[in-house]
Amino acid sequence: MNKFEKAQELLNDLNGDGWLIICNEDSDIHSRFLLGVASHARHYIYVAANGQHKVLSVEMEAGMIKKALEKKGVDAKVIFYTTIEDLVPKLKPIINKPRIALNFGENVLTEEGTAYADHIRVGDFFSIKELVPNTEFFSAAPIIEELRSVKTPEELDDLRNVCKATLELLETIPDWVKIGMTEKEIQAKLEYEYTKIGKPSFEAIVASGAHSADPHHNTSTKKIEPGVLLIDTGLQIDQMCSDITWTFWVGNNPSDEFLQAYQILYESKEVANKYFIADIPNYLPAKMCRDFLAEKGYDHERLFFHGLGHSLGFEAHDIGARIRWKSPKEYRLKENMVYTNEPGLYWSGKWGIRQEDDVIIGKEECEQVTYNHKDPIII
Amino acid sequence: MNKFEKAQELLNDLNGDGWLIICNEDSDIHSRFLLGVASHARHYIYVAANGQHKVLSVEMEAGMIKKALEKKGVDAKVIFYTTIEDLVPKLKPIINKPRIALNFGENVLTEEGTAYADHIRVGDFFSIKELVPNTEFFSAAPIIEELRSVKTPEELDDLRNVCKATLELLETIPDWVKIGMTEKEIQAKLEYEYTKIGKPSFEAIVASGAHSADPHHNTSTKKIEPGVLLIDTGLQIDQMCSDITWTFWVGNNPSDEFLQAYQILYESKEVANKYFIADIPNYLPAKMCRDFLAEKGYDHERLFFHGLGHSLGFEAHDIGARIRWKSPKEYRLKENMVYTNEPGLYWSGKWGIRQEDDVIIGKEECEQVTYNHKDPIII
Repeated sequence: MNKFEKAQELLNDLNGDGWLIICNEDSDIHSRFLLGVASHARHYIYVAANGQHKVLSVEMEAGMIKKALEKKGVDAKVIFYTTIEDLVPKLKPIINKPRIALNFGENVLTEEGTAYADHIRVGDFFSIKELVPNTEFFSAAPIIEELRSVKTPEELDDLRNVCKATLELLETIPDWVKIGMTEKEIQAKLEYEYTKIGKPSFEAIVASGAHSADPHHNTSTKKIEPGVLLIDTGLQIDQMCSDITWTFWVGNNPSDEFLQAYQILYESKEVANKYFIADIPNYLPAKMCRDFLAEKGYDHERLFFHGLGHSLGFEAHDIGARIRWKSPKEYRLKENMVYTNEPGLYWSGKWGIRQEDDVIIGKEECEQVTYNHKDPIII
Repeated sequence: MNKFEKAQELLNDLNGDGWLIICNEDSDIHSRFLLGVASHARHYIYVAANGQHKVLSVEMEAGMIKKALEKKGVDAKVIFYTTIEDLVPKLKPIINKPRIALNFGENVLTEEGTAYADHIRVGDFFSIKELVPNTEFFSAAPIIEELRSVKTPEELDDLRNVCKATLELLETIPDWVKIGMTEKEIQAKLEYEYTKIGKPSFEAIVASGAHSADPHHNTSTKKIEPGVLLIDTGLQIDQMCSDITWTFWVGNNPSDEFLQAYQILYESKEVANKYFIADIPNYLPAKMCRDFLAEKGYDHERLFFHGLGHSLGFEAHDIGARIRWKSPKEYRLKENMVYTNEPGLYWSGKWGIRQEDDVIIGKEECEQVTYNHKDPIII
């Protein structure tokens, strides 16, 4: 069953006539998710409950979209427009239906909200409300969640494949990273290898020395110095992203503080791993990890100021509630969800450490799709 | 004057109390534009008419944002939140003001609309309307247009610099592109060089053979074959992007059709160049280019099915009306706007050709910041 067919089924369950995706300059990831190709100009994808799917795009991208859909076996009509004046009369009959799902979020400022579905922009929203004033629009959040949060067997195979390729590349790092290279040069080399077979799933974070204390450091032209080197990177091939962090020591004689933190962090990750299991509440892996860190004498509230993990899939930050020790108790993991497990410890202005692996939630135990080394790699 | 100060001035002209940017998972480019750093988690930037600027971000990214603002000499208070429950009471007092500008577009389905300002998402919009029901929100389109469409001297220097670096790389292509490499490998090499000094301004289009007939082809693992090779690529360093297309011939004996099309297209681009001048209506460069192609016997309506150019700046597709022969007559170019000039001819299923250069609009003539070769490069 292709994604259009699965979406069509979900739409019928919700008594919707169609699911409309509006995308302009890559504003909605669900365009690439459904089409399998990136269309940049303004376009509309209409998944129809009756199977008469349509895509309305600019002439210049229509051929590319048609080819991509044929490759995926999707039966959808691709229509093209030339100007905005030409677009409007072609769009109206497609969406002039009683009940249409749209990618907007509800209650985004509450924990239980659906910010993950929030893609359509305000101007676009009011423009179509005006165009078809009698249509009822409802949030596509349930469709998005069903389509993306639990992964299919094909997606899980893609994940194993993309993680394997990423790990093989990470293993080569000690061979080519040298003191004096810049952070950017390391990023460039990683992404060069990715681009040959896929694309970076996000801009690699390469953080040397004190930069490693910023979990979302923007990779800079600073030269690699002896000490901590943190690399957080991922690849996308086909439908799935990898997302892995390894922390290295550059030069001789890693400090005792580093060696100890590395060891304890590794163990805290292993502790958490035991709780990435179906039906376990989301907060539990994070709580067990933090309890362990506290027991070992680390002030986790001060030193570990981000969540333990996030859903991973078509996007590096995918659909599904995060793994945080303060997550609402009713959020639970499901079989074949995919999560990162990434504890970290950061001493502001000094250095930081993070170990991030990707896991598939299983019935009895998780499948660890990636690994960190038990002892830190010395470069 | 830094960007916050300039925005503050524009805001006062519009009798606004603040300009609020809501950004989550890179949903609004104006975050990176203002902060000079990419923050990925949900954050709020408030440019205040009274100069008391504020940024509200997650703890993990607050330090990075603070450092970036200090580097730019921006006086803004960075506040962090931990959970959504913690965010709401911190956000409310910041935006509980009479009149606030927001990044939404109006009349996006008309030529005169402001789709370029449309960034805020529907769920976010209604969430803050609910939070501060007495606040009047107005479109930030005029602020965005003033800040971004006409470039400052510093931005123009950045442009010259980034274009020079891109051209130097393009000139090396005949040295390393070989028959049998994949399109992806060429993209990877280009972006590797970019990443060392900046970042790709968009995913490079590398199109061999029939792929060159798709103007927005998604670079594939197809091997380079003898014949047409189209490369459309750009780099971003600091504040500006380059965007250049060169079309090559791979192998011996370029066909006469190709040589002729290349020559005529080059001349059509030169014709258009004469009209990238302040106060000229936008449609004119496109019309003159198309008239020339028609005169030379090319059915431009069928073979050249995209606009002649787009604004270039902080984004590869920047703020400003496109250069299209059907553009409304009242759109006019202004001094120090930056545009692409990119005529193309495409024979579907066979091959295509495009030549794209970047120009700065001048008072008497444009400044050509990039070039295409007069005769095609044979690889």
